[in-house]
Amino acid sequence: MVMAGGTVRAEQVGATRELILTAAERLFAERGVYAVSNRQVSEAAGQGNNAAVGYHFGTKADLVRAIIRKHAAPVEEIRTRLLAATGDSTDVRDWVGCLVRPVPEHLGALGSPTWYARFCAQVMTDPALRPIMVEESLSSPSLRQILDGLERCLPELPAEVRAERGDMVRHLILHMSAERERALAEGARTPRANWHDAATGLVDAVVGMWLAPVTSGS
Amino acid sequence: MVMAGGTVRAEQVGATRELILTAAERLFAERGVYAVSNRQVSEAAGQGNNAAVGYHFGTKADLVRAIIRKHAAPVEEIRTRLLAATGDSTDVRDWVGCLVRPVPEHLGALGSPTWYARFCAQVMTDPALRPIMVEESLSSPSLRQILDGLERCLPELPAEVRAERGDMVRHLILHMSAERERALAEGARTPRANWHDAATGLVDAVVGMWLAPVTSGS
Repeated sequence: MVMAGGTVRAEQVGATRELILTAAERLFAERGVYAVSNRQVSEAAGQGNNAAVGYHFGTKADLVRAIIRKHAAPVEEIRTRLLAATGDSTDVRDWVGCLVRPVPEHLGALGSPTWYARFCAQVMTDPALRPIMVEESLSSPSLRQILDGLERCLPELPAEVRAERGDMVRHLILHMSAERERALAEGARTPRANWHDAATGLVDAVVGMWLAPVTSGS
Repeated sequence: MVMAGGTVRAEQVGATRELILTAAERLFAERGVYAVSNRQVSEAAGQGNNAAVGYHFGTKADLVRAIIRKHAAPVEEIRTRLLAATGDSTDVRDWVGCLVRPVPEHLGALGSPTWYARFCAQVMTDPALRPIMVEESLSSPSLRQILDGLERCLPELPAEVRAERGDMVRHLILHMSAERERALAEGARTPRANWHDAATGLVDAVVGMWLAPVTSGS
């Protein structure tokens, strides 16, 4: 009986945490991470206790980290699946696909509307929150494998240009996803019909970028 | 005497406004646009009156707009100069240079450290402030000329892909500039020795991106 009671309690806590995470992500995306208080998140999550966010997550930084972690697992799963299909390919496009597709594919699987991309774009540009995101993303082992795969395809590309273009791809995935997400939320026109095609547009562009000749410095 | 007095007064007001704009830009870049209060900006600008920001600029949104306008003029000047040198070129690289170089060249001319790129990255990803930035940048007539020039070079590129890649370039310029600015401020390593070379790295990548073949949708 004690065990069963414990399980029910754990399930309730899990459900409450989930409600808070969803409400927070939506409010942060729509109104801004800093414009929204923990109290407003608690209310939007239907919690009678306005301190629910603090009780379940701690500070706003802790809440931000929890939202990131919630999405990290499914994104990593997609990336691992794409990596397995890529094997030891020497085609740049295959590796670029592994790099670019996981986030848009994850957003597509969530169903419309999504809020995560707009949330992430804010976190990545905020001086105080950015380190949380950087820390959480660097922990992906599959990401390292993809960058190694790209290096094997183009061994002549100077290391600093590889690093530079790697940064460019990261920005493109994040901010183009946020832009598409915003357009969908606002009912605006988008250049592509779905997330898969939007990812294809990104893959086309990134392959061109990765293969572009390098002008030496001044 | 009244006129002379008026001029002195106008100069003082101009100097105070300038002090406030500089302090705000720095604090916003380093701590976050929302984390910093108008009161803190007034103090950092050396104003005895803590309401100085409100008196001279109004709300935080007005202050954000004033910072953007301060930089818009020199950026537009660089863009116009590059456009004049490009003439009626049919080389994609010339037009991409007009598109990519103005912001990094402006940041380079400001001398280290700069704060504007990190400030802009926050503004562009914030749901409440973003419309200000969009409104201010769309008012650039030279930007339209460049996009038309690119269209003349590549008339076969579908309009929606052109729009999509135009968005990509916008994100790359802004976020790669913010990343380099942050690295310089933190004394971290950067892939390029100076802003001109950083822009060249971007031009190389963007030309490759613009010329990339288009895969048709699913």
